[in-house]
Amino acid sequence: MILKYVYGTPIETDAVVKEVDGAEKNIPFFNVEKTEETVTFSYQMEEDDIVYGLGENVRGINKRGFLYVSNCSDDPCHREDTNSLYGAHNFILVDGKELFGVFVDFPEKVTFDIGYTKRTEMDITVNDVNFVIYVITGEDEKDIVKQFRQMIGQSYIAPKWALGYGQSRWSYMNEGEIREVVKNYRDNQIPLDMVYLDIDYMERYKDFTVNKEAFPDLEALAKEMKEQGIRLVPIIDAGVKIEEGYDIYEEGLEKGYFCKKEDGTEFVAGVWPGKVHFPDMLNDEARNWFGKKYKVLLDKGIEGFWNDMNEPAIFYSEDRLKKAFEELAKLQGENLDIYKFFHMKDLVLELANNKEDYASFYHEYKGQRIRHDKVHNLYGYYMTRAAGEAFDELEPDKRILMFSRASYIGMHRYGGIWTGDNMSWWSHLLLNIRMMPALNMCGFLYTGADLGGFGAHVTEDLMLRWLEFGIFTPLMRNHSALGTRRQEAYQFEDKKVFANIIGIRYGILPYIYSEYMKSSIRDEMMFRPLAFDYREDSFAKRVEDQLLVGDSIMIAPVYEQNAKGRYVYLPEKMKMVKMKSLTERTYEILEKGHHYIDVDLDEVIFFIRPDKLIPLSKGGQFVEEVDFEDLELLSFVETEATYELYTDDGFTKEYDKPEHFKHLISK
Amino acid sequence: MILKYVYGTPIETDAVVKEVDGAEKNIPFFNVEKTEETVTFSYQMEEDDIVYGLGENVRGINKRGFLYVSNCSDDPCHREDTNSLYGAHNFILVDGKELFGVFVDFPEKVTFDIGYTKRTEMDITVNDVNFVIYVITGEDEKDIVKQFRQMIGQSYIAPKWALGYGQSRWSYMNEGEIREVVKNYRDNQIPLDMVYLDIDYMERYKDFTVNKEAFPDLEALAKEMKEQGIRLVPIIDAGVKIEEGYDIYEEGLEKGYFCKKEDGTEFVAGVWPGKVHFPDMLNDEARNWFGKKYKVLLDKGIEGFWNDMNEPAIFYSEDRLKKAFEELAKLQGENLDIYKFFHMKDLVLELANNKEDYASFYHEYKGQRIRHDKVHNLYGYYMTRAAGEAFDELEPDKRILMFSRASYIGMHRYGGIWTGDNMSWWSHLLLNIRMMPALNMCGFLYTGADLGGFGAHVTEDLMLRWLEFGIFTPLMRNHSALGTRRQEAYQFEDKKVFANIIGIRYGILPYIYSEYMKSSIRDEMMFRPLAFDYREDSFAKRVEDQLLVGDSIMIAPVYEQNAKGRYVYLPEKMKMVKMKSLTERTYEILEKGHHYIDVDLDEVIFFIRPDKLIPLSKGGQFVEEVDFEDLELLSFVETEATYELYTDDGFTKEYDKPEHFKHLISK
Repeated sequence: MILKYVYGTPIETDAVVKEVDGAEKNIPFFNVEKTEETVTFSYQMEEDDIVYGLGENVRGINKRGFLYVSNCSDDPCHREDTNSLYGAHNFILVDGKELFGVFVDFPEKVTFDIGYTKRTEMDITVNDVNFVIYVITGEDEKDIVKQFRQMIGQSYIAPKWALGYGQSRWSYMNEGEIREVVKNYRDNQIPLDMVYLDIDYMERYKDFTVNKEAFPDLEALAKEMKEQGIRLVPIIDAGVKIEEGYDIYEEGLEKGYFCKKEDGTEFVAGVWPGKVHFPDMLNDEARNWFGKKYKVLLDKGIEGFWNDMNEPAIFYSEDRLKKAFEELAKLQGENLDIYKFFHMKDLVLELANNKEDYASFYHEYKGQRIRHDKVHNLYGYYMTRAAGEAFDELEPDKRILMFSRASYIGMHRYGGIWTGDNMSWWSHLLLNIRMMPALNMCGFLYTGADLGGFGAHVTEDLMLRWLEFGIFTPLMRNHSALGTRRQEAYQFEDKKVFANIIGIRYGILPYIYSEYMKSSIRDEMMFRPLAFDYREDSFAKRVEDQLLVGDSIMIAPVYEQNAKGRYVYLPEKMKMVKMKSLTERTYEILEKGHHYIDVDLDEVIFFIRPDKLIPLSKGGQFVEEVDFEDLELLSFVETEATYELYTDDGFTKEYDKPEHFKHLISK
Repeated sequence: MILKYVYGTPIETDAVVKEVDGAEKNIPFFNVEKTEETVTFSYQMEEDDIVYGLGENVRGINKRGFLYVSNCSDDPCHREDTNSLYGAHNFILVDGKELFGVFVDFPEKVTFDIGYTKRTEMDITVNDVNFVIYVITGEDEKDIVKQFRQMIGQSYIAPKWALGYGQSRWSYMNEGEIREVVKNYRDNQIPLDMVYLDIDYMERYKDFTVNKEAFPDLEALAKEMKEQGIRLVPIIDAGVKIEEGYDIYEEGLEKGYFCKKEDGTEFVAGVWPGKVHFPDMLNDEARNWFGKKYKVLLDKGIEGFWNDMNEPAIFYSEDRLKKAFEELAKLQGENLDIYKFFHMKDLVLELANNKEDYASFYHEYKGQRIRHDKVHNLYGYYMTRAAGEAFDELEPDKRILMFSRASYIGMHRYGGIWTGDNMSWWSHLLLNIRMMPALNMCGFLYTGADLGGFGAHVTEDLMLRWLEFGIFTPLMRNHSALGTRRQEAYQFEDKKVFANIIGIRYGILPYIYSEYMKSSIRDEMMFRPLAFDYREDSFAKRVEDQLLVGDSIMIAPVYEQNAKGRYVYLPEKMKMVKMKSLTERTYEILEKGHHYIDVDLDEVIFFIRPDKLIPLSKGGQFVEEVDFEDLELLSFVETEATYELYTDDGFTKEYDKPEHFKHLISK
């Protein structure tokens, strides 16, 4: 059951698509404390209560013991004490003495103090008195999530080829580099479906332009690539460069589509190209205009995009930069002791993503003029909505790949997300694992992390272990930053191992695709904590590093350097599968309970649940090469194992025709 | 056997105290590659080789898979990709196909690429052609470490009271705050032995001064505290404030004791007080002069110190700051695109600890003028040596507490170290655990981390879990930074639990003190990886989160948030002890093998090895209250359990008299 509570006069976010009547009774479970500016919902936790959720955020599957802030933030180097990441996903599920979900539909800051200030108290504080809060009760965890997901609408579905493996880099600087990457992959027989174009494909970082020197004919290149089974996926940034003669800048300015300051002049921020304006994605007309611009690239044969810098990230605002220079000049010649020196540093460090800057420009949203900070968490969502709505018009019959960095619940209907810039850290691999169920809860199914890590230098073992997990995530992309060690799969010593591991992805693709599609069609979670399926198993609730993936599989990834194995908990008897490649496999039936399992560095392990099947293809060098008809069945048959296989052509938008579903049986 | 290889004409570091003849044969195990500027020693690792060592550095007990740089660095927010911490400890132990230790005695940068560039290759690169390298072979790991430790000389020994629990904060601002802290501890019956004075006890951060407003009579305060069993432990910084009329500044200047630039003028750095000079700690005369200054505080009844900022940390140099301001002025008014904007940021961010600044001043060392960067890693060592040598003269019969932030091997004879500024991160608790054996290998026995974490906000559970590990480390100090959540033990909800956990430290103190003393006297490791004692156990080699502490105990700390237990590997049958307090204990005999053990948040667990004893006192509110005669014996008797107990008065400097050793037996 969904209970809806409207406080004051909320700003509509379009997160929810289902009509829900306002509840008549008082909000259950919580103590409510109102001030003139905030509302706090307090819940007394028992020792064994678990709090799931919050989508893209730091720490564990169980979110207890920290303070999280929903505030879309650009923080590549996020650490244990980071409170906000790129997305703002205000859904939690409390599981213990009571069982209920909560969704706070509010586009500004929401704070979740989950046993941080007081170990047994949860305080959800909304930074306003106008918002909607939903409380969802149900039979079990999955039922509550499903009700929530039905309320927020069906998740975006990517084309099938986007479930292949992609290679990215900030940046492949010209078409020669792209060809070289593809050649290296193909020569080493490492499968590949996508090459990503980061900011340098553009002419001086201008959206919807192409650097003609580096990419003289993008359309021809896209065609040439597609003939090899490769899609090019360019980046689109939020900010539009201020440059005379640049059509998008001039049109946007003329039509008044950019965000303005209080005095009515356009807000000027600095990002990649230097000074930019932000299109007012919240304004229907401006959004429609911006979305249609993707046509420039669609017309060149591009079939997928990633939207970036749309928190929006701000390196500096023109106004703040000016003031900083003035302040800095004053410090010159002084004896800078600790306080003055840190003031100097702050003048520069606080230029980026400054909350005062976010409070200095405005949107025209649903007929109202609204200050940006009041709707901050919607910006990335509405940029992606711009694209999604445009694609529906421009390409009504074809799925276009779209995923975003910033997001809010609701955006999941228009695109996926990657988990933003991360680091080549083992702890970020673990974070990736732990985040997947939380993202799925919030409707983000086409999702994954920058495999190998974006910032910092990767090592071969980290790259391998991360790929060994990444083969299970729908978005499977290797991405890394300027100045870091090259991390294309062929850059490492043991190329064959990389070919084998990535090859396994293409082998299990019928399963991954099928589970991904069913999760979207049925508003379910593809990645689940063990406790969701093994409700009566009290140990399952403690497990923070194993997941259920789809209907048949439990995974237990290795995420520690130099580890030659790991402890695995089996909530019931399962069949362990070890794969060195698609064809080199061993099996072992393991009993319920604790096990220490050896896992070689060149090896993927997973576990088949009793009476479950995994359809396995013969693999291929890219998705279209994979034969979804010629399947082998991996199974763990206790009595009779069954599997519901979803297949389709991979690009049309009809998903639930009966012929898409096939029932496989193994005895 | 120790093989010594002298390359070129090395700078003497005084790391080694034992005469070792130069080896006649070529260096074994390594391929050597020389260039005009560097020498690289390469070793081919087998899959199962483990590399231990490197003292204070990041990552695991097994150092494989990363690149470490010995370069004393101030980096509080160290992360997985940090290469250098506060100490430079060039000792490693290779354990696998071959078994040997390596010590590179070189005071500048040494790089240990341990399977980072190539997974199976270790490259040790010395940034010069003048240095000494030792290769040590022996019977087993412990034998090699012992030979190394004998070569570098006996480790510093702290007074017994310094093995109590200490409370620190940046900063307790006045004597009232000190009294309040102590009162709160005593009122809540949480044991306490030390309160630390951070930089604000000084008059404007000037070494060997006292802020008279905040601390009108430090001598009287020290006396008052001592009557309650509390020692005050002030900080001493490396930099001397430039201020007319400040005696230390004026004397140092007059006598030429400060480090100078090439042009003969004093080098000016900025740290806490703004502009400072660095005393030339490497110059015998200057060192002697600086060391004698500690007398100012000894005369006030102070019996312990911590040396800080002695990498030396530099916020900025006067020269670089001037240039930065000029460069910044040039950027004003430009369109700052990505490259120009990051240049602006770098101008400010690269002010601190800049390697060009370290190459711009000089020492007078052993009769030679040497540029600082060539001996960078010795500075903290020699600052602490200044104190150590002075204490020997000023207080010949009494142990003075001394520990440092920066260090090099050799310094372990003059003081301990804490592991420097860290963060309130669970990963830093794990790092603390993993670092202990490596520190012990390098002679640092009086050591520990800032419990609870220095930077960022601690939570009650992190504080507890960290204390539950910290009760085993000789240096047991809770320290936190300005602006972070207060983390004195009485600040949390469940004060009784804190009293109990810290109380356990005072219960096991006879064991901790005894093991600490024996480790120093015998050049052994108090904290050891499991594999050092269980050489034939191949699984023990994999264990990265359990340690042997002294002769009788194995620990398996909990270091994950919300964990209600953990997996523990027992290399042989042991007796598990669970303690909620000194008196609430349960025991269980566990068989060799893998176990999942429940560990409540308010609980300490450890394991007694077969036929071993642990002497347990009745506890106390401070060390001098602990009765070392009235002992209970915790034991796990298979046939006959024995223990060699070390006791002494805790402050005189004679350590190995026969009456200090007592043999306890339990049948």
